[in-house]
Amino acid sequence: MSRRNLSPAELFEAARNGDRGALARVLSLLERGDATAREVGRMAYKHSGHGYTVGITGAPGAGKSTLTSALIKHLRSLEMEIAVLAIDPSSPFTGGAILGDRVRMQDHATDPGVFIRSMATRGHLGGLSLSTPEAIRLLDAVGREWILVETVGVGQVEVEIAGKADTTVVVLNPGWGDSVQANKAGLMEIADVFVINKADRKGADETRRDIEQMLELTDLATDDWHPLIIPTVGTTGEGVTELWNAICEHRSFIEANNVLQTRREFRLREELREIVARRLELRARELCTGERWENIQQQVIDRQIDPWSAADEMLHGVGA
Amino acid sequence: MSRRNLSPAELFEAARNGDRGALARVLSLLERGDATAREVGRMAYKHSGHGYTVGITGAPGAGKSTLTSALIKHLRSLEMEIAVLAIDPSSPFTGGAILGDRVRMQDHATDPGVFIRSMATRGHLGGLSLSTPEAIRLLDAVGREWILVETVGVGQVEVEIAGKADTTVVVLNPGWGDSVQANKAGLMEIADVFVINKADRKGADETRRDIEQMLELTDLATDDWHPLIIPTVGTTGEGVTELWNAICEHRSFIEANNVLQTRREFRLREELREIVARRLELRARELCTGERWENIQQQVIDRQIDPWSAADEMLHGVGA
Repeated sequence: MSRRNLSPAELFEAARNGDRGALARVLSLLERGDATAREVGRMAYKHSGHGYTVGITGAPGAGKSTLTSALIKHLRSLEMEIAVLAIDPSSPFTGGAILGDRVRMQDHATDPGVFIRSMATRGHLGGLSLSTPEAIRLLDAVGREWILVETVGVGQVEVEIAGKADTTVVVLNPGWGDSVQANKAGLMEIADVFVINKADRKGADETRRDIEQMLELTDLATDDWHPLIIPTVGTTGEGVTELWNAICEHRSFIEANNVLQTRREFRLREELREIVARRLELRARELCTGERWENIQQQVIDRQIDPWSAADEMLHGVGA
Repeated sequence: MSRRNLSPAELFEAARNGDRGALARVLSLLERGDATAREVGRMAYKHSGHGYTVGITGAPGAGKSTLTSALIKHLRSLEMEIAVLAIDPSSPFTGGAILGDRVRMQDHATDPGVFIRSMATRGHLGGLSLSTPEAIRLLDAVGREWILVETVGVGQVEVEIAGKADTTVVVLNPGWGDSVQANKAGLMEIADVFVINKADRKGADETRRDIEQMLELTDLATDDWHPLIIPTVGTTGEGVTELWNAICEHRSFIEANNVLQTRREFRLREELREIVARRLELRARELCTGERWENIQQQVIDRQIDPWSAADEMLHGVGA
């Protein structure tokens, strides 16, 4: 059956009933900034808020996908319904990396309890920083209890997106310094759990001391969450249970202290503000183009109208 | 007579008839972003376009004011009506510098053919980058034939403003490197005439070679204007006639090649675009505040409405 002719309500209903194709279709539409996806998002919103998001970030090659895969296995053994979003803001260039990751995740390809999806920038309004929370809410609304959001790098956008999860895991390796130099401060700020993956290599102890030192410089109050540091070897599964326990410990902490609710509210306010700003930006771009714009510019040049009155005229009906 | 009760039309008429107090009043209102000034600007616009602007920029202490003062003397000997705008984007901190400059310009204080005025940021919409062209148009519309725009430093805003003049003069000193390091590329880009002031000091020849070398690296076509380099000693007046000739040579060049018209049109288009963008920005700031904003945020948090629909509602009537 083609899903192209389904209404937003039918698409959403199908996705809620476990139709993975319908879910994939909505996410594709969302990635493109399509109006149908927006409509589905509208319906999904009131059903969301139950899933828990875990952000996983770190330099390429740090072993994020192997760890994610190990986490999936663990969650599935607990019979949790999972979704994985792999976010790639620089997609045309790192398509290979994403593909590699997805191959590594093939283990879970036939498991209906796991839904894996990569998302790239498609240049529409607000880009990934606006489409990611929308995608998360959709996955949440169709019943995924854990949503793992993996970002491929440590650039500003990646760190921002991973930092908006309920619990954020930063994956480092022994001798991590160089690979994340550019955004060390950003990573330190968002991490709830540090993973030192490939901990069987030399330098793991130094890396732990490095992190501890940087944490000491951070002004944490005694009742704040103090980030945990977990050594792992993703390829053997060593430390994965400890990582899982660390994530759960953080979750319990923020749920008990009402931090989770406050954080989520803060993120929603920020998102709303960003949507308003991006919409007005789009409007400005629309206004400053086309025949009407050319005409008014010519009138300004011909001194028939001054620039401020011209702006008034362009903005007429925009209330600005 | 108090000018506070004059209508915009009366203020503009008084300024056109040579009432310096009325002109000063409009510029003060403009600096504050007052609606009366906007109204006067609207009337002034069709009377503008006849004056010629010369931007003068360079590091503090390079001798800009002394040179400006020498140029004023020269222009007055030709019976030109002049205005000088001293632009200071960082005003609260360099008020002293501006004051010093104005004291040096006291020579011209009693000459009705010279109107000197400093302008600082007052934090209103668009700041100096939008109020400076408006002020220039006003001075132009009341009959000033030459408008000298002096900026106090070589920061990005200063360089941008000076670069928007018809002819831009960059004032350097022997051993100039350090004082302008941060924005050397910006200065090279805007200069139509380089002045090496204090050319009696050692290092003047090296400075000339430096500039020539940097110009060689610039990809100038044979029919482009090739910036002139003029050595001066502002305190003795040495080289000021040559500077004046260089400015006139550049003016003739761009008038003959229709470059002046093209540049002015380009600047107007840019200004219009900036006004539209700033107005929408202001609108976004207005929208994302107040009781209505708080209410809609709460509705989003309570999941009564999704963020995109909430943005729709906030933007209702704004056409965005």
